[in-house]
Amino acid sequence: MDDTVPGDATTHVLGIDSGGSGVRVGVARADAPGGSATKPLTWSSSTPAGVGARGIDAADLLARVLPAARELLREAAARRVGAVCVGAAGMATLGDDLRARLPDALADAFGVRRLALAADAVTAYAGALGQRPGAVVAAGTGLIALGAVPEGRTGGGWRRADGWGHLLGDCGGGAWIGRAGLEAAMRAYDGRAGGSKPLLARLEAVFGPAAGLPGKLYPRPDRPAVLASFAPEVGRCADEDPVAAGILRDAARHIAEAAEAVCPRLESSEVALTGGLFRMGAPLLTPVGEALAARLPGVRVAEAAGDPLDGALCVAAALAVDGLRLPRDPGLLTVI
Amino acid sequence: MDDTVPGDATTHVLGIDSGGSGVRVGVARADAPGGSATKPLTWSSSTPAGVGARGIDAADLLARVLPAARELLREAAARRVGAVCVGAAGMATLGDDLRARLPDALADAFGVRRLALAADAVTAYAGALGQRPGAVVAAGTGLIALGAVPEGRTGGGWRRADGWGHLLGDCGGGAWIGRAGLEAAMRAYDGRAGGSKPLLARLEAVFGPAAGLPGKLYPRPDRPAVLASFAPEVGRCADEDPVAAGILRDAARHIAEAAEAVCPRLESSEVALTGGLFRMGAPLLTPVGEALAARLPGVRVAEAAGDPLDGALCVAAALAVDGLRLPRDPGLLTVI
Repeated sequence: MDDTVPGDATTHVLGIDSGGSGVRVGVARADAPGGSATKPLTWSSSTPAGVGARGIDAADLLARVLPAARELLREAAARRVGAVCVGAAGMATLGDDLRARLPDALADAFGVRRLALAADAVTAYAGALGQRPGAVVAAGTGLIALGAVPEGRTGGGWRRADGWGHLLGDCGGGAWIGRAGLEAAMRAYDGRAGGSKPLLARLEAVFGPAAGLPGKLYPRPDRPAVLASFAPEVGRCADEDPVAAGILRDAARHIAEAAEAVCPRLESSEVALTGGLFRMGAPLLTPVGEALAARLPGVRVAEAAGDPLDGALCVAAALAVDGLRLPRDPGLLTVI
Repeated sequence: MDDTVPGDATTHVLGIDSGGSGVRVGVARADAPGGSATKPLTWSSSTPAGVGARGIDAADLLARVLPAARELLREAAARRVGAVCVGAAGMATLGDDLRARLPDALADAFGVRRLALAADAVTAYAGALGQRPGAVVAAGTGLIALGAVPEGRTGGGWRRADGWGHLLGDCGGGAWIGRAGLEAAMRAYDGRAGGSKPLLARLEAVFGPAAGLPGKLYPRPDRPAVLASFAPEVGRCADEDPVAAGILRDAARHIAEAAEAVCPRLESSEVALTGGLFRMGAPLLTPVGEALAARLPGVRVAEAAGDPLDGALCVAAALAVDGLRLPRDPGLLTVI
């Protein structure tokens, strides 16, 4: 690695995205705006990082990520690593070992001394909107909304809403929609008001006899994921079934309420949606668009430019050229 | 024990109530209608029956219950046990060992050969309405509605609604109300629409800082009970807080919908409410009364005569004199 100035074509940045469904590594040129103008080279594994008594296990993560990063840097003919950003689910509460070990390990491996540690909601934000002000709703099994006013502007900082998990919130997320769908199916099974026979038929097609569902669901350690697995069935029924359509309208309202709670009141604010839930398409996106228009009139709804790995690369690229304007925050984004 | 005819003043019956919060035993005179006209003698333990690979462990239950029953029968100067009813949470799915061992064990101990095994919802029904037709909503942490048309009448049989647990239903029960209250509190914390500052204040008084609640709730094995512990706070806020009042109105609607789904359409049908949730009093009972009047016009809302142990004694007393009219059902009520 040499002493070339940051930002030239041979300076690269490294992004790492560690979440519940696996680990991904990306390498991109530092001068590609947002890290995504030229397609980054990526590596992925569906095995999540190990979590131990000190939270996310840095040694375990490094043992898998460093060889992959070296290979990607070689492929990219990178001469220098300008910065690294690691985004991780649970960074605030599970990130102690990462904060303690990553700076030295990455300096030893790549000679890089610029390191950002970000919550996964921050990399989701940066992947969707880059460093522009606005609100991002990230929804998969769960749901969280994050709003940002870049540093240096009045009111600079983050705001978050929801992300409280399937028993306290995550309103409008995958587990929420799936649970509402299964509840409506069981209502139909009982003959209670508000039930949906189409959803009952889908429940039985997916899980077998309705009366056996509690015995299948409650012993599982991954109950939120089981609930969320039924969300696409609600989407499929929405065209024909008013109960399913009503569930998605309620979800859309919750999504818009979360965006409204965090979106900065700036003329340039944008709102973006990101995460696997929105692959449901029109049955959810149409009512979400209506709810956003009603609650945040005049705010542009942007297509998410990229995913959390793109976001990690965006943060790293900004950091490499001293251009990081996303707000620092002890629980969300720290720079070491 | 002698050969006195059933129904005389020296024939007694034995009731056993086994649930998640403990085990109770009662002894009453067989000629006391419903087993409760003269106050039964009772024994209770807050240790629930052991549950093993074969479900509820009969040997464990008997080892605790038989000495208590012997002592109560001695106190009552009972000369003969006419019948026994055991009511247990999970009787349908966890009752194999009880069905296999209890008949011989009770015959050996008390010379009794009349034994009824009942789901806890059935003993709740019999405790509330005896053998009269109608619907009973039993609500604590969870919620289940059971309707009965006595045997020998057209359409004789049981109907049940809900009781599907905190992720699939139990709509309007303690965990449901508590969860809705905590969700409204977190909404206020986030600044989302629909939040309740009074409930947020109660959350913080009970659980500490709001942002720390997920870390306290999710690792617990008894999450539904933790959620239900917040239900009385919702009741306390309802007078002043429209959000809390709205939660209880929604709960009341769910309770009435469950009753409506199971209540037989007979002129003599009654509806009764039983279980710890209704100790919340007016904040819940007032909207429940309104919702029942709207959904089941003309159906008398009866005060529950007794609790599930009274129900077990009622079933045993009826069985002792060949007068059991509550419907037999493999999952709900079997007579051996």
